[in-house]
Amino acid sequence: MTEIPILHEDPRSGNCYKIKLVAALLDIRLETRQYDIMRGETRAREFLAQVNSNGRIPVLQLGNRFLPESNAACWYLASGSALVPDERFAQADTLRWMFFEQYNHEPNIATLRFWLRFVGEAHLTEQQRAQIPAKRIAGEDALALMEAHLKSRGFMLGSTVTLADISLFAYTHVAEEGGFGLENYPAVCAWIKRIMALPGFIAME
Amino acid sequence: MTEIPILHEDPRSGNCYKIKLVAALLDIRLETRQYDIMRGETRAREFLAQVNSNGRIPVLQLGNRFLPESNAACWYLASGSALVPDERFAQADTLRWMFFEQYNHEPNIATLRFWLRFVGEAHLTEQQRAQIPAKRIAGEDALALMEAHLKSRGFMLGSTVTLADISLFAYTHVAEEGGFGLENYPAVCAWIKRIMALPGFIAME
Repeated sequence: MTEIPILHEDPRSGNCYKIKLVAALLDIRLETRQYDIMRGETRAREFLAQVNSNGRIPVLQLGNRFLPESNAACWYLASGSALVPDERFAQADTLRWMFFEQYNHEPNIATLRFWLRFVGEAHLTEQQRAQIPAKRIAGEDALALMEAHLKSRGFMLGSTVTLADISLFAYTHVAEEGGFGLENYPAVCAWIKRIMALPGFIAME
Repeated sequence: MTEIPILHEDPRSGNCYKIKLVAALLDIRLETRQYDIMRGETRAREFLAQVNSNGRIPVLQLGNRFLPESNAACWYLASGSALVPDERFAQADTLRWMFFEQYNHEPNIATLRFWLRFVGEAHLTEQQRAQIPAKRIAGEDALALMEAHLKSRGFMLGSTVTLADISLFAYTHVAEEGGFGLENYPAVCAWIKRIMALPGFIAME
């Protein structure tokens, strides 16, 4: 990379943290531009026109090119490193867990964390409140699936850390802020400790 | 690939169709095992134990290894082909659209298609029915974002077809079955025609 990548982020977002953690583990320098999603700063006209018409962060900027989607930004930074396995099945299996994260994990665990910790239950719409029980069950299902998988493995793909772990770590390690009790998932807790012990690890702000 | 991959699928699923379309475009032979998701066949004990503990299809089986998540299965099959760009930014940008598909597109457009076309509005739970307006808006937003992007491009990444197109095509081309009017999206309609004209293209069953 000839230019220093710029991360457009809100530091409270686990999706943004993923990218910073990948950069830290790989010793890649990142610049950041910060936005307050609670104040709608990623819905402002300038942001929509110049950074992401989807109105979402994170976005990784590379010169004059913009890359939305947290897991795609992680992939860009980690390409060619050990966090992205070369072997054909292992590479696809890494993506398998990253798609699982975005489909089964993040919409439940991250959304409940956002609603309960940042928006506040009293400020939720009726429709949001009605979705809490289903998101609670689906979030517990995602954690239970990780628990079963990690019972016999150090990391999601086996003995070495990959982007599958970093992607899932971001919202799993703060799941209690969404009301999920991690004490029911001892293998997940042990895995969290293993990730926090990686050389170069940085904590979420 | 020394063994013929086996696709565990329900032919009505766009997520399964994606994988078959990739195999067809790349002239890769696939075997299939069919399940009826309406009858809960992917929640049966044997399926959960042997194929996918997540209870979901598609799953791509490679010998004794199992790969869930439609986009991960597409990635496995298309690795090393032109559908997965080699260049670092283009490869991450391909994934960007595949994550967009699973986060912003599929949960809205595919879910409304499933509810309205296969389950039937009369059989929806009260909670499902309450989610229809939000999913309608989010699905239209996803189509509008594709429309704006495709106005100046032949395919999602520019002039050549990639997995980004195949992934998004699967549920976009049947979006009308979920009540989305594609006539409002002429660039999307032109793109659908371009994909249907690709050598090796197969239609959804």
